[in-house]
Amino acid sequence: MALLETDDKQDPGLSMPSEKESAAIPERPRSRPGVVAAAVYEHGQRTHDIEIQEAHKWRGREKAVVWIGLHEPDEALLREVQAEFGLPELAIEDANHAHQRPKLEIYGDSIFVVARTAHMGGGEIVFGETHLFVGRGYVVSVRHGPSTSYNLVRQRCEASPAALAHGENYILYSILDFIVDNYMPVVEGIHAEVEELEERVLRDRLDKKDIERLYFLRRSLLRLRNAVVPLVDVCRRHEHLDLPGMDATLHALFRDVTDHVRRVQEDIDTLREVLAFTFEASLMIGQSEQTEISRKLASWAAILAVPTAIAGIYGMNFEDMPELKFKYGYFVILGFIIMVCSMLYRMFRRAKWL
Amino acid sequence: MALLETDDKQDPGLSMPSEKESAAIPERPRSRPGVVAAAVYEHGQRTHDIEIQEAHKWRGREKAVVWIGLHEPDEALLREVQAEFGLPELAIEDANHAHQRPKLEIYGDSIFVVARTAHMGGGEIVFGETHLFVGRGYVVSVRHGPSTSYNLVRQRCEASPAALAHGENYILYSILDFIVDNYMPVVEGIHAEVEELEERVLRDRLDKKDIERLYFLRRSLLRLRNAVVPLVDVCRRHEHLDLPGMDATLHALFRDVTDHVRRVQEDIDTLREVLAFTFEASLMIGQSEQTEISRKLASWAAILAVPTAIAGIYGMNFEDMPELKFKYGYFVILGFIIMVCSMLYRMFRRAKWL
Amino acid sequence: MALLETDDKQDPGLSMPSEKESAAIPERPRSRPGVVAAAVYEHGQRTHDIEIQEAHKWRGREKAVVWIGLHEPDEALLREVQAEFGLPELAIEDANHAHQRPKLEIYGDSIFVVARTAHMGGGEIVFGETHLFVGRGYVVSVRHGPSTSYNLVRQRCEASPAALAHGENYILYSILDFIVDNYMPVVEGIHAEVEELEERVLRDRLDKKDIERLYFLRRSLLRLRNAVVPLVDVCRRHEHLDLPGMDATLHALFRDVTDHVRRVQEDIDTLREVLAFTFEASLMIGQSEQTEISRKLASWAAILAVPTAIAGIYGMNFEDMPELKFKYGYFVILGFIIMVCSMLYRMFRRAKWL
Amino acid sequence: MALLETDDKQDPGLSMPSEKESAAIPERPRSRPGVVAAAVYEHGQRTHDIEIQEAHKWRGREKAVVWIGLHEPDEALLREVQAEFGLPELAIEDANHAHQRPKLEIYGDSIFVVARTAHMGGGEIVFGETHLFVGRGYVVSVRHGPSTSYNLVRQRCEASPAALAHGENYILYSILDFIVDNYMPVVEGIHAEVEELEERVLRDRLDKKDIERLYFLRRSLLRLRNAVVPLVDVCRRHEHLDLPGMDATLHALFRDVTDHVRRVQEDIDTLREVLAFTFEASLMIGQSEQTEISRKLASWAAILAVPTAIAGIYGMNFEDMPELKFKYGYFVILGFIIMVCSMLYRMFRRAKWL
Amino acid sequence: MALLETDDKQDPGLSMPSEKESAAIPERPRSRPGVVAAAVYEHGQRTHDIEIQEAHKWRGREKAVVWIGLHEPDEALLREVQAEFGLPELAIEDANHAHQRPKLEIYGDSIFVVARTAHMGGGEIVFGETHLFVGRGYVVSVRHGPSTSYNLVRQRCEASPAALAHGENYILYSILDFIVDNYMPVVEGIHAEVEELEERVLRDRLDKKDIERLYFLRRSLLRLRNAVVPLVDVCRRHEHLDLPGMDATLHALFRDVTDHVRRVQEDIDTLREVLAFTFEASLMIGQSEQTEISRKLASWAAILAVPTAIAGIYGMNFEDMPELKFKYGYFVILGFIIMVCSMLYRMFRRAKWL
Repeated sequence: MALLETDDKQDPGLSMPSEKESAAIPERPRSRPGVVAAAVYEHGQRTHDIEIQEAHKWRGREKAVVWIGLHEPDEALLREVQAEFGLPELAIEDANHAHQRPKLEIYGDSIFVVARTAHMGGGEIVFGETHLFVGRGYVVSVRHGPSTSYNLVRQRCEASPAALAHGENYILYSILDFIVDNYMPVVEGIHAEVEELEERVLRDRLDKKDIERLYFLRRSLLRLRNAVVPLVDVCRRHEHLDLPGMDATLHALFRDVTDHVRRVQEDIDTLREVLAFTFEASLMIGQSEQTEISRKLASWAAILAVPTAIAGIYGMNFEDMPELKFKYGYFVILGFIIMVCSMLYRMFRRAKWL
Repeated sequence: MALLETDDKQDPGLSMPSEKESAAIPERPRSRPGVVAAAVYEHGQRTHDIEIQEAHKWRGREKAVVWIGLHEPDEALLREVQAEFGLPELAIEDANHAHQRPKLEIYGDSIFVVARTAHMGGGEIVFGETHLFVGRGYVVSVRHGPSTSYNLVRQRCEASPAALAHGENYILYSILDFIVDNYMPVVEGIHAEVEELEERVLRDRLDKKDIERLYFLRRSLLRLRNAVVPLVDVCRRHEHLDLPGMDATLHALFRDVTDHVRRVQEDIDTLREVLAFTFEASLMIGQSEQTEISRKLASWAAILAVPTAIAGIYGMNFEDMPELKFKYGYFVILGFIIMVCSMLYRMFRRAKWL
Repeated sequence: MALLETDDKQDPGLSMPSEKESAAIPERPRSRPGVVAAAVYEHGQRTHDIEIQEAHKWRGREKAVVWIGLHEPDEALLREVQAEFGLPELAIEDANHAHQRPKLEIYGDSIFVVARTAHMGGGEIVFGETHLFVGRGYVVSVRHGPSTSYNLVRQRCEASPAALAHGENYILYSILDFIVDNYMPVVEGIHAEVEELEERVLRDRLDKKDIERLYFLRRSLLRLRNAVVPLVDVCRRHEHLDLPGMDATLHALFRDVTDHVRRVQEDIDTLREVLAFTFEASLMIGQSEQTEISRKLASWAAILAVPTAIAGIYGMNFEDMPELKFKYGYFVILGFIIMVCSMLYRMFRRAKWL
Repeated sequence: MALLETDDKQDPGLSMPSEKESAAIPERPRSRPGVVAAAVYEHGQRTHDIEIQEAHKWRGREKAVVWIGLHEPDEALLREVQAEFGLPELAIEDANHAHQRPKLEIYGDSIFVVARTAHMGGGEIVFGETHLFVGRGYVVSVRHGPSTSYNLVRQRCEASPAALAHGENYILYSILDFIVDNYMPVVEGIHAEVEELEERVLRDRLDKKDIERLYFLRRSLLRLRNAVVPLVDVCRRHEHLDLPGMDATLHALFRDVTDHVRRVQEDIDTLREVLAFTFEASLMIGQSEQTEISRKLASWAAILAVPTAIAGIYGMNFEDMPELKFKYGYFVILGFIIMVCSMLYRMFRRAKWL
Repeated sequence: MALLETDDKQDPGLSMPSEKESAAIPERPRSRPGVVAAAVYEHGQRTHDIEIQEAHKWRGREKAVVWIGLHEPDEALLREVQAEFGLPELAIEDANHAHQRPKLEIYGDSIFVVARTAHMGGGEIVFGETHLFVGRGYVVSVRHGPSTSYNLVRQRCEASPAALAHGENYILYSILDFIVDNYMPVVEGIHAEVEELEERVLRDRLDKKDIERLYFLRRSLLRLRNAVVPLVDVCRRHEHLDLPGMDATLHALFRDVTDHVRRVQEDIDTLREVLAFTFEASLMIGQSEQTEISRKLASWAAILAVPTAIAGIYGMNFEDMPELKFKYGYFVILGFIIMVCSMLYRMFRRAKWL
């Protein structure tokens, strides 16, 4: 029961969580693998840290909320949690093997929410999946893949007991809000790369490495979009959910999350279109460059063909070539070659081919 | 009546069906061609294997479900089945000649479902069509084309009698779920090929064979999409079907299938977009390559034009060319040529043309 | 009155109509130009062939249906028909000058349907327009342009009197079904051409003639789509039409037509996308070919520049060029040239430029 | 009051108006600038030509309709008209400065309609704007820009008094129908140009002038589409307008206009797509041409490199070049050159490079 | 309290505000930073200038409206304002950090509106954000970023007291109308640039600078579109808002704003499509130019290869080359070269390669 407290003490940095740290919070191995935290909250205060099998005792109590955080639990653990809270069978099966689309499902008074998470890790976008079971007096979060721990959400919630007293729905809101918040640095990271790329496409030109980068940015945005777009609908449905304890204040909070996730979607769509523009600009610049090179090539070929042709003629071995015997014939021809070449040069220059 | 049992015995591998095997289950010729299986289930237990013409006897009985599996039946057989269950005329006509769009049609208490199936066969996607007649106390499945046999579904259902006791709707769910499940390896196969292609487009360059592959991948995804997209609607309508025996549990199961098929659709759409990106990346890389070659060609042409032009000039046969008589004139000119050429070379190098 | 019978007798081939013939049925000039057929059906049996001006006598009778087929009637004839059946003024004006969009209009108990027809004629798609006036006890079909005659529909209907006994709505269904059926060979014809083109684009390369073909296929599909897409809506509205004598059986038949026309639309859309892929594949292949040629050109230019440059140098007329006086100097240089050239050749070969 | 009559007499051609003339009807300056016509109609007959300030006297009368046509009125005139009919303030402000989107606004019993007009003028599409105020007993049309005069509509209406007796709604219908009718020649004009362009792109090749033409056709279609698309909605809403005197007959007429404007939209969309195809065909043809030229260039370069290289070698001045002293050496080499060149020529020919 | 009056006096130009000036109104630092203006209006007349902390005194009074204008207020100020009017917590948080999507939120009787503003500044589009809190008897506007001051709106409102007497909703309308009005010069600025670009692409050709300009125009339009599109929905919802004091007149005014913002959206979409056409035209022109250059290059290469090859041959040093000894041999060959070259020239000319 003292587990989480020690957890906090061992990682004191957590008390002032910042954007950066949150992605890097090390998850201390707990006594039971798969359980990140399990606690009871009464009137917004954390009153007990519990074991999974104690959960059902707390569930019925007025104003008590059990909040359990799992990370890639094995099936046995999941089944145990299911038994404690009577979670719906199908949702458990979904939670058991990840790769669900973001969705909201309602089972009587309880709901099951799937969301995809994203954060930057090692220069790459790392995607995860979170399943949330929320019902009267409990919240169970199940994280899959390398997503950010929700310990930070827990701490923020504990820091404002008045809000947390709203119960399970407030916790649900906090987690969703956190997930959506975490999209922002990812989008901003892509944004920065996109700006770098467009700088390059317009100033220099894209090399193979840039094209590869452009390609992977488009793919990343596509995946991010797949995570975000269905979540818009999930969030919007929360605005009108008619669950016990879901009041106007909470609806307003969920509306706020919806606005937020929509803004993320708008940013993603904007970036996608910008990259399409970048592609087209790159084509145009490439084409204009190609034309320029062809022009230069043609111009120089023309200029250099002159001495070759003339010299060739005077290199012929005819016995009777009067010019060859002229005095200064050589210099006249040399002068003629230079004159024609420089004339051509100026001509091409004027036509902007050179 | 003992037919199916022998069927099972002859092919004992079937008792441990795996993803791979399922595509390869050989269909033992039954006494009657076109009939794969015909059995009565009571309380989730297979109680009798029957002949088609006995079906009507069982249809009326409480808690009994007749499940008949046909494969490319001739019209006579289809008409017989129609007579046994009173299947709707139009649906029978549809079933008689394949090439229907996936759809759900309701005829009073019975429904008619068309779905397209897909599996990998010999490196190609193989499409089939399945027609399902479901009504009170019976399920008739009619497979067209090279689709996977539903014996596997039958075995899975028989393995969980409690679920099967839900009757015909559970069987319907099981078949749809199976069809949707079978899309996954196809999508994954295409996914693997797409990744290989994008690897190639970004590292090497696409040759004609790759472009052909890209082309056929796009076509395959298009056909797969045509199979999957109308099925989303079919599945969603099942979630709210108000048929006898269709309870909340079954609705939840159908919702699960809908989620599943939507996820397949999302994957297909993602792959389609990725292939569009691949096309664009290929254009960009091709263009940048073309530019590079032009630059190299122009650079070398310029460098090599120097000795040609100079040598040409000193190859002229003028009588009065003083340089020709200079001692070391040849070496000076040779040196001059080398100098100019290497100057040009360094110039192009610096401009990254070479 | 005996007109139609003689019509049938003169063209006995009509009794075994096939897909091919139907497009080529010659329309024998009737006594009155513009009238293809005019008959009364009672209980599904053709009982009288009539003149237009007799029509109103039959209209009121229980279970009698007057079915008149017109082909590009002049306005006088149309006005006469209008008077007989009290057809709506606006619809008559529409029917008078073709070029309407497919639509369904309801005027009290009667309806006005416009559909576009298509069939292959001389390697080209030929488009026509059909206007249908359907009301209690009558069907008037007006064909414009080179569409297929509906005599075939008439014969099919007469062959199944039980169905025809459903009255005017069944005739309406039969004609719509026939129109939609006739799209199929057109779509299949385009399909065959598309496959030929994609074969060519991937194996050989598209010449100007192919590009022209591709272009016209896209245009044809566009026109076909314009004919089909609004018809989907027309057919779907028929599924729920609440007209006298329109029962569940007929609604099911119309649903069948809707499915059919939707399938045609899906096929068209698939072909359109395939042609877009063909365009993109053609661009890619063209680009890759261009690159290949440039590479070859550059390689050979480089290889051939070597003897030119070297020979140029030893063709200079300097008095003091020691190599010229070396014994075997010529052979050494010749060998040197060959060596450098073959070295270059192997280099380009290895780089896959040659 | 006699003004309009004289107007008719002065321009007798107007009595047989044709498509062409209608675009060129000269508007005779009336006593009051901005007022094109102002008349009272009773029972479908024009009974009085009036001054603006008399209008209110007629407005109340049973079966009388005041129809005023204005062309770019100044604000004073507009205010006067507003006072006479109690027109809504906001609509007047809109009418005062053009550049509105097509729309239908309802103010109690009266409506305000904005439509964009288009006609061909001097080879260009000329766009105008018309504002219509329609209420019980009056129609006020306000034209902006170089649109076609509605005198023609007035004459047509006056020619069918029975229809005109329907009152202001019939006039509204007539004007809208006229506006939509006028789109047709514009669309047909573009159509003709598009066909010319596609002829050129497929037979010859597009020069800069053609590309410019293509560009401006696309822009024109875009502007035309902006005029037409919102009008579809405006017309459709008229089909269900519940205004005094708007009966089923008129609803049918408005439905007819809707069909018409939809057909125009369909034509525009078709042309837009055709131009997109033209662009793509042009790209493909351009690319294939480029490839062809490269091939030819490469082939000839290769062929001509042979004599240059060989001649270069035998132009070297080595003392010891035995071939030079061979009898017929020159002719052998000449023959060799010709042989190699013609071999290359045939090789390229066979590979279809030449 | 006299602040605003002095403000007006100090900047007398404000009394005749024009489009240009409005963007440049200097904001005089007020006693309290962040507060631009704070005044009470009674019956459409400005009666008192107040301090923030006096606001609540006026709020309850019949017919009095408090209008406060803030510019990038600090949180303390915002909190104070919140306390005075009881503004909703979440909206205040939104207002505190900008970057919201345009939206309309309803909190009981009060609303919260977010809009994005745009104006031209230094040749660039400058985007800002405005948050509006409107409730019974008050309007609070909060500007973020470099948007145009609303002092101009205030003056216009004060100039028409009758309209202003409508209260807070009229002020809200005025501000929204002003924001939408301010989009117009931005759109027109882009329009002018687009026309310049299309002139260039069709006459000359696009250089890198033009492509960059094209690229940034597309991005600007994208951002502008992101500002405008959600505002359409916000404005439309205002048309039906059921707030105290929101009558038919105001609904009509909001409908007018909706029309206006829709027109802006239409213009933006048109410009976006035009730029897409420009891109495609640029590709086509680039390709046709490239082809032309290749043709010219090939033609000249062919023409110049003739003297080189022939001269090369007669530059060979064979002992036995009879032509070399012919009298006038040189002139014959020279003539031959000239003849062949001019023949080729005319040939290429005729084929339009030169």
